[in-house]
Amino acid sequence: MVNNPIIETLLQHRSIRKYTKEEPTDEIIATIVRAGQQAAFAAQLYSVLLSRKKKGIPFGAPVLFTICVDLHKLTQIMAHRNWQWVTNDVSSLFFGIQDAALMAQNMVIAAESLGLGTCFLGAAPYRAKKIAREYKLPKRVFPIVQLVMGYPAEDVPPRPRYPLEFVLFEDRYPELGEETIARAMAAMDEGYLGQGYYRRAGYQIPLEGERAETYTFDNYGWTEHISRKWGQWNPSPQELLAELAERGFHLGEADEELP
Amino acid sequence: MVNNPIIETLLQHRSIRKYTKEEPTDEIIATIVRAGQQAAFAAQLYSVLLSRKKKGIPFGAPVLFTICVDLHKLTQIMAHRNWQWVTNDVSSLFFGIQDAALMAQNMVIAAESLGLGTCFLGAAPYRAKKIAREYKLPKRVFPIVQLVMGYPAEDVPPRPRYPLEFVLFEDRYPELGEETIARAMAAMDEGYLGQGYYRRAGYQIPLEGERAETYTFDNYGWTEHISRKWGQWNPSPQELLAELAERGFHLGEADEELP
Repeated sequence: MVNNPIIETLLQHRSIRKYTKEEPTDEIIATIVRAGQQAAFAAQLYSVLLSRKKKGIPFGAPVLFTICVDLHKLTQIMAHRNWQWVTNDVSSLFFGIQDAALMAQNMVIAAESLGLGTCFLGAAPYRAKKIAREYKLPKRVFPIVQLVMGYPAEDVPPRPRYPLEFVLFEDRYPELGEETIARAMAAMDEGYLGQGYYRRAGYQIPLEGERAETYTFDNYGWTEHISRKWGQWNPSPQELLAELAERGFHLGEADEELP
Repeated sequence: MVNNPIIETLLQHRSIRKYTKEEPTDEIIATIVRAGQQAAFAAQLYSVLLSRKKKGIPFGAPVLFTICVDLHKLTQIMAHRNWQWVTNDVSSLFFGIQDAALMAQNMVIAAESLGLGTCFLGAAPYRAKKIAREYKLPKRVFPIVQLVMGYPAEDVPPRPRYPLEFVLFEDRYPELGEETIARAMAAMDEGYLGQGYYRRAGYQIPLEGERAETYTFDNYGWTEHISRKWGQWNPSPQELLAELAERGFHLGEADEELP
């Protein structure tokens, strides 16, 4: 591994879930958003909502950002150029979600370089109607991810990640043999168990249906946790499709309803 | 604005479209991907394909990364835990595209900190079948974005961005008055025209239909360019939906076809 202060900052990233009362200044907030803006976007298809009304911000953080896909602004600009948006919403969302995420990640890095900590909240798309009401969002603006930010009041280690052999594939995607999968699972589970992550959080995803709980904090690791999430959560797209439709996004043909 | 070397790196970002013949070492590539891996993911729902077969890599770059949404790997892990993927594909893609983009942005920042340059290529989703064949991708792996990388053989300035007043909204999304829109358009158009961006590139998006060309490189700016893109490109989602379906992703209910 090569190293320098920026690589070090990236490698030291960890999500922060306890914050001091100190508030970042307007100048710091503007710097973080401005640095985020310089990412290589498809078309600047994002907006950033800011709340400093501490009531309701998770983890007692002083700042909550909501990063949205925003087709509204560019539609307004296009109207001044005598154009209408015709690109389908699946393609627009593919690019828009990327633009929002590129922005969010740059903001995380900028914040950490200034001594701040952050934590992503992934539920924003499922709370789109509520967020739209709160921030008076126009149609064609859709919240993708929220980011709490403030000065850390906890010191936690970077969390485990897959081994590189499970992530980077040259020239062809390999058959993932049993041993490779076992090493990836061990890296994640032993890593999280070693840090006591779920024990400290006091949380296991509850089992639905007829499965009996057999895990304790002694053996409940990342792979069990993440399997319970994607193995139980949100089988139907209808909830998210309804949130999208409410905000003016349709994943079928423009004039057709999805099944 | 507050400043430090990381903020400076973020603000100095620009896409590079000319590269020297120098090849980044294996160690540098591993460092960049490893640094990318430490972003705060939903569930590490990505894989990174690497090609160093220079033939066919745009801009003569020595390295091409293809960052994919990967549900295949986690599905394999879940099988070892006796779980099956049930989450709908719209939700899975929302998180997966974000994970891929967070990874990609960290890789860009890591690369730039090591003196490398990068350029995103956004067409990967529309070439998914071809990329899948080339890299022998299993189902449930979908290419989101490509990233060329190498040592810059050109020095170009950071590109213009919207004013902060058009990006960051506190407490409520404002009515975007005519003056605000005019300032945002002017910042982008005067910025791109001042840099001679499209003139140097020798490129304007051709007009379809009956519109007559009235723009020259003297007045063809970013807002005209981007309006032509989203005002003409890809009205139907069917092409992308077909690429997705081919790779095992369905945006309607799991057992239904989209209209």
